[in-house]
Amino acid sequence: MFSDSTITENETRRDLPAHLEQLLRTICFRIRVQGREALKNYSITAAQFDLLQRVYFNGPQTMTKLSQSLGIAKSTTSGLVTRLVRDGFLDRRRDETDRRVFTVAITPLGEQVIKSVIEMRVRYVEEVIKQIPEEKITLVHNALDILYEVMSPKQH
Amino acid sequence: MFSDSTITENETRRDLPAHLEQLLRTICFRIRVQGREALKNYSITAAQFDLLQRVYFNGPQTMTKLSQSLGIAKSTTSGLVTRLVRDGFLDRRRDETDRRVFTVAITPLGEQVIKSVIEMRVRYVEEVIKQIPEEKITLVHNALDILYEVMSPKQH
Repeated sequence: MFSDSTITENETRRDLPAHLEQLLRTICFRIRVQGREALKNYSITAAQFDLLQRVYFNGPQTMTKLSQSLGIAKSTTSGLVTRLVRDGFLDRRRDETDRRVFTVAITPLGEQVIKSVIEMRVRYVEEVIKQIPEEKITLVHNALDILYEVMSPKQH
Repeated sequence: MFSDSTITENETRRDLPAHLEQLLRTICFRIRVQGREALKNYSITAAQFDLLQRVYFNGPQTMTKLSQSLGIAKSTTSGLVTRLVRDGFLDRRRDETDRRVFTVAITPLGEQVIKSVIEMRVRYVEEVIKQIPEEKITLVHNALDILYEVMSPKQH
């Protein structure tokens, strides 16, 4: 029989990663949900948004690379891209170095979608900060700086 | 002309939500990428995983509800579900209260996928914690507790 009080300090330490992962999972999920609210202003699906985001952050790329980085079939990518091009969020052009290849790039309207989502996320974080006592805000800021720093790819 | 040194304390305060959102976005993204590594052991796409996750966390549900919560067309949902059922990750059954309706539920194999992803995430968080000095770990833990608490839906 185990009760909470029998948990030793070692066991607590062992459970810490799982506990922090759960906290982070919930925090990330709530911000994500708030951000995606912005998509309701555009007729864009979650799958289309994932693709758009990929092009926004990684720059213009070929359909093949896009399929690989999203881990979806080329035919699925093609369907998503076709609708995003039709609705003005993406541009499909022939590659300048290899005319047989098509490259996908984001349009100003596509950029606007990404920025709207980020804006909704920032607004939510702003609401959250308002509920945190002044003296704890620095603590949160420092903690996120530490996590960000440790998670950044190391320069060798 | 503006340089960093002209930023007043008020301006810094105004930029804080945007700064914290960016830190959180990167932190969440890195954990996410590590977790998705687990999917390589199963032949499952990102879109299929999103759907699976939804069924795992929200319980058995109808195709209509699933389409709505994922914000995708019923035909797309149907295609994703068909492949997940075929590969043994989901079960499609007739609803017990309304025999005309199909309900989608997760199988033990489907649960295993979700748990593998969470395990990869926890392992990454564990690696991250190891790089944080002992005395800072409590700070990070406290900060995440604060964010989690403030972001939780309020009970009235």
